[in-house]
Amino acid sequence: MKYWELDTPSLLIDREIMLDNLRFMQDWADSRKVALRPHTKTHKMPYIARLQKELGAVGIAVAKVGEAEVMAANGLDNIFIANEIVGEKKLERIRRVAETSTIAFGVDSPCQVQDAERVFASAAKPANVLIEIEVGENRSGIIEEKDFLDLLETMRRSPHVHFRGIFSHDGHSYSAKDTEECGRIFLESQRRTLRFADLAEGKGMKPEVVSIGSTPSLMNRFEILEGITELRPGTYVFMDASQAHAIGTLDRCAATVLATVISKPTAERVIMDVGAKGLTMQERTKGICATPGKGTIREFPSVHIFAVYDEHAIIYDREFREKVSIGEKLRIIPVHICPVCNLYDSATLISGDDVVEEIPILCRGKLQ
Amino acid sequence: MKYWELDTPSLLIDREIMLDNLRFMQDWADSRKVALRPHTKTHKMPYIARLQKELGAVGIAVAKVGEAEVMAANGLDNIFIANEIVGEKKLERIRRVAETSTIAFGVDSPCQVQDAERVFASAAKPANVLIEIEVGENRSGIIEEKDFLDLLETMRRSPHVHFRGIFSHDGHSYSAKDTEECGRIFLESQRRTLRFADLAEGKGMKPEVVSIGSTPSLMNRFEILEGITELRPGTYVFMDASQAHAIGTLDRCAATVLATVISKPTAERVIMDVGAKGLTMQERTKGICATPGKGTIREFPSVHIFAVYDEHAIIYDREFREKVSIGEKLRIIPVHICPVCNLYDSATLISGDDVVEEIPILCRGKLQ
Repeated sequence: MKYWELDTPSLLIDREIMLDNLRFMQDWADSRKVALRPHTKTHKMPYIARLQKELGAVGIAVAKVGEAEVMAANGLDNIFIANEIVGEKKLERIRRVAETSTIAFGVDSPCQVQDAERVFASAAKPANVLIEIEVGENRSGIIEEKDFLDLLETMRRSPHVHFRGIFSHDGHSYSAKDTEECGRIFLESQRRTLRFADLAEGKGMKPEVVSIGSTPSLMNRFEILEGITELRPGTYVFMDASQAHAIGTLDRCAATVLATVISKPTAERVIMDVGAKGLTMQERTKGICATPGKGTIREFPSVHIFAVYDEHAIIYDREFREKVSIGEKLRIIPVHICPVCNLYDSATLISGDDVVEEIPILCRGKLQ
Repeated sequence: MKYWELDTPSLLIDREIMLDNLRFMQDWADSRKVALRPHTKTHKMPYIARLQKELGAVGIAVAKVGEAEVMAANGLDNIFIANEIVGEKKLERIRRVAETSTIAFGVDSPCQVQDAERVFASAAKPANVLIEIEVGENRSGIIEEKDFLDLLETMRRSPHVHFRGIFSHDGHSYSAKDTEECGRIFLESQRRTLRFADLAEGKGMKPEVVSIGSTPSLMNRFEILEGITELRPGTYVFMDASQAHAIGTLDRCAATVLATVISKPTAERVIMDVGAKGLTMQERTKGICATPGKGTIREFPSVHIFAVYDEHAIIYDREFREKVSIGEKLRIIPVHICPVCNLYDSATLISGDDVVEEIPILCRGKLQ
């Protein structure tokens, strides 16, 4: 079967491009002698997580307890929930996963450690935790050294909580104004992360894991500093229009949304049958990952989506409008692939024009 | 069980507010002697569609064939797919639904009618179609009168296609600069829709259905012109932060996302455990539906979400930061509820603080 025989919208994954992306990052990690722990929140598919491990990944990262549960139930081990875990219900679920799998999670404040201590007091193994370090993204994570030392002290007094290491995310590299700034952000983020690793070592609590990473920095193969033990990129598996603009080519985009032209109401307007519910309304407007629209047409790389409604994508382009017919199917490269995969129950793996198989997106909607 | 005992993120529906919203719109339709056909793409729940029919709705609107299939399988009849249907696969699925239910769909160009004629040639009943009229939203639909007359002519020559009427959507009322302009848009949209109804009547093809509507115009109870037979709003069932700003109160917002404070990294920053995958990144920046953020905290109506990442919502507010604790659960009113419902497998119906029941969102992810 050819992919254009599929109904639309459908999420397609080009097998060869994906495998190239996976090997590229594994090779880079191997060559720098650091572990690769792909962030599977991008694809949410145990199928692809298994591929990543077969190629050499040390384990996987996930964002949610529900993702960890699905991955563990599908044979994945060595799972890190790269997110602050709050609340006894989630901690109890992690304790259950820990009975059969190796699992760790993130913290950035003492009350999270105290909750973990209480829930894991009756467990066979201690809770494995990593402290998040804020490196400039302005999201979560420890900022002040004093807070870090207090948190370590809380852990030292918590026999059922094991300090496994630290992690950071240089997500602000996405909006770096150019590649040079992206490299500077990556370097500064590593230095800041390593400063906290040194602080911990000074307290006699040397981190086993010092985990960093985001796709724009790692696709550019910026130097990895001594002391970093693990890379944690996610988007590199599929890439997307934002990442394509950061590296200057669409050739590495493995994931596309197959959509149909359903209306051509004016001489320059084309409507396709996928909108916010199959593509999101996300756009990036700043820096190296900025995109000229809300999606790019793979077959017409200069044509971008102008507006997205719940169920419609609108394109204004007279020349494009003349070239496509109502009923024609085209492939859209999404601006940011991570929330897009979360919208589909399955993706179709293709090789060239051929449909290979359907892959269930088993972690879709695992929000808790 | 109290709603705050639920894990997060969870989608909550306040039963009494929702029922008030449903009755408000049904009363308005009844008082103007027009039919109400709620657009169920907002909630995607057969449970609520049944409530809407019990309260007096003539039928339902959906956006996708997959939604129509689920609704029909769950006892709903008289279904209109308010969207251009393109492609034989979708037409064949509609033909199957038509064997047991009343179903209609939208068109705006002759090739769609020709495809329907071919697929329905062997069916027991003709295809019921409505022509979409573009009234200023700049989306799909017929613009030129000549194109409309050509389309009618194509239908006249298609014995297996039945012209059931016309429909339009004044979605540009969402970005009206004030209530007065919203009213003007509604009036002009109706006049334009009725002009096409007259054209059809002049050709001896008087439409049985003249269907209009969007929530901002109808919540404001702007006058409905003679000749309009049907209203087709969707968002009114739950309302959202955008609609709240359009009518000046949050009191009618029935749907909220329960989320937990998971980090307070600075003196003014608060992080909650829901992001683009449970809340979307949508914002509205223009007109009566413009919102000051990417979500509003129900318990602190002046506090809005500043930034949304895949899994995190970021708020900057020193006073709010001092008042909330890590682990505390709060209810977020989403900016646009329609794509949010599509992210959850189920919603929890609550009455006051009490959990009533869990409602499956059976049309979630029905993209085709």
